[in-house]
Amino acid sequence: MLPISIPPLDTAAAHAARERIDQLTKPVGSLGRIEELAERLAGMHGGLPPLYERRAIVVGAGDHGVTAEGVSAYPSEVTPQMVGAFLGEFAAINAFARVARAEVFVANFGVTGSLPQHPRLLDRNIARGTRNLAREAAMPDEHVDAAIDAGIRVFADVDARVHPEIVALGEMGIGNSTSAAALICAFTGADACEVVGRGTGVDDGGLQRKQRVVADAVERVRGADWRTVVAELGGYEIVGLAGVLLAAAQARVPVVLDGFIVSAAALVAQQIEPSALGYCIAAHRSRELGHAIALRHLGLVPLLDLDLRLGEASGAALALPLCEAAARMVREMKTFAQAGVATANAQIEA
Amino acid sequence: MLPISIPPLDTAAAHAARERIDQLTKPVGSLGRIEELAERLAGMHGGLPPLYERRAIVVGAGDHGVTAEGVSAYPSEVTPQMVGAFLGEFAAINAFARVARAEVFVANFGVTGSLPQHPRLLDRNIARGTRNLAREAAMPDEHVDAAIDAGIRVFADVDARVHPEIVALGEMGIGNSTSAAALICAFTGADACEVVGRGTGVDDGGLQRKQRVVADAVERVRGADWRTVVAELGGYEIVGLAGVLLAAAQARVPVVLDGFIVSAAALVAQQIEPSALGYCIAAHRSRELGHAIALRHLGLVPLLDLDLRLGEASGAALALPLCEAAARMVREMKTFAQAGVATANAQIEA
Repeated sequence: MLPISIPPLDTAAAHAARERIDQLTKPVGSLGRIEELAERLAGMHGGLPPLYERRAIVVGAGDHGVTAEGVSAYPSEVTPQMVGAFLGEFAAINAFARVARAEVFVANFGVTGSLPQHPRLLDRNIARGTRNLAREAAMPDEHVDAAIDAGIRVFADVDARVHPEIVALGEMGIGNSTSAAALICAFTGADACEVVGRGTGVDDGGLQRKQRVVADAVERVRGADWRTVVAELGGYEIVGLAGVLLAAAQARVPVVLDGFIVSAAALVAQQIEPSALGYCIAAHRSRELGHAIALRHLGLVPLLDLDLRLGEASGAALALPLCEAAARMVREMKTFAQAGVATANAQIEA
Repeated sequence: MLPISIPPLDTAAAHAARERIDQLTKPVGSLGRIEELAERLAGMHGGLPPLYERRAIVVGAGDHGVTAEGVSAYPSEVTPQMVGAFLGEFAAINAFARVARAEVFVANFGVTGSLPQHPRLLDRNIARGTRNLAREAAMPDEHVDAAIDAGIRVFADVDARVHPEIVALGEMGIGNSTSAAALICAFTGADACEVVGRGTGVDDGGLQRKQRVVADAVERVRGADWRTVVAELGGYEIVGLAGVLLAAAQARVPVVLDGFIVSAAALVAQQIEPSALGYCIAAHRSRELGHAIALRHLGLVPLLDLDLRLGEASGAALALPLCEAAARMVREMKTFAQAGVATANAQIEA
């Protein structure tokens, strides 16, 4: 695995931001979660956060052999079709990226089908899809490190292109909610019945199959080291996104996490370098069962709760304006002293 | 009162939007609250919602005689000082308006002090602050209609200036959380202890005084008609904002409501013309006690829950990008058929 070194958060910068926030022309604490976010962002950047003029969205894509078990409502051919939609700019993430003024990149970590060449498609394919995790290890051990490294290189590619000040992570991969559920169970200790949901909308029979597949696969890795767990249960896009996360954190670039599947990627990154989570922002709580369990294990509290369960970084894109709002608050508001506004309790008993 | 006529929501347009949303390249329902929002916006506009290129924020301002009871952490002089901050563009709402690409107008409905002339200050002052609602009616009966009319005129002023496609409402007025709490109790039947919160941050003694003031004032209006309730308990900015809301709904312009105090304005509008609520979007659930009660009575489910309690339309501004996201989703995404993507269950048992 390529070497990764996560710089410590700048607690002095976070503290200075909090001191400034408490002097701005508003009651102390009255902007709640936005204040917390500004403080955290200052700690990540080592000073007041920038206004995020340069924003990148990275959608990791990969296929999953486990679809052979009938665990998804969609066929695997949808993965490359949706990658085409992202590159053609007519998918949900493109609509939301326009709102967020962010550029969308797609990283091919493990798609089965052929993808067209495209300036915003970063081809770091490790293999043409995983093997069926219900029957065997999803990938050979050495592909774990290869996928992490592919993610690290994807971040370098994106950094060379747009030098992003913030990165939102999303995914596309038919079958990947099965892999994500298995990883979440393995790393949090939760039961399959608490974590396995309907993904893109599998029916009752599919849900039962999916729960059984996950429960059995997780049983197989009980007590194993993290790399074995990931090799047995993982997906190329999930592991690749863990690499993107680690590389962004190394570069002190805040990472906005999308939903359920990206939370599994974050759990993988947490196994490798727990301090990378200090650079992560949970965009939203997905409707997908078990996302809340993963977020708790990551120590992250989501910003939005909009009943989303699409993926693609759609929820992460919606959280980007909140990061800009936090930055503008701490940068652009005046303090009571600067503004000449009377402070609390100045004449309370007048 | 100036005549107001609220056009019915276009249920056929809402239905057509829902049909289109269900065919877009994503699992049905997977964008949750954003889909609901797009459907509602289509019903308001009578067709697919616009991308909201023109956005206005209207901050109603007024002072409150009840501050003499020691119910607020800040002195009344802060009201004109903060209006100055809004016009000088260095308050929280200005920072958030930049994120939302919205223009901020301030409407003076009842500020005590003098305000400077300014192109974005709409002066519709009814009186130099309310009387002390703990001792007497906050305003004479005829001021209720005058304040509603002032609000209707403010919307016309804003419409003439920027012809907004969406309007966010906010407020500034030291003491106004006492007036809002009293109105919410009177119109929802809730107890003062469920509704009265700390506002900008009053201490324990102030909170007790505030609860007593509200409970006593609400007792005084039990069984009274809505106009008497508003005259006894109201604030000029609260009633004025009800007028802005009614006029925007009449023009089929969606109204994004900020927090606790604006919810009191919406309850006043609901008394006058309940169907106006069909044009309202609740931006967020405030940390202020009793906001959830008001929202339930209005039949609105908030989009955000960020522990905000500032006012100024700060929460409403943060919800504007979500409205743009809903509009872009339904306008810019392709359907499965248009995109050539396989639909659910096409090969589920493959």
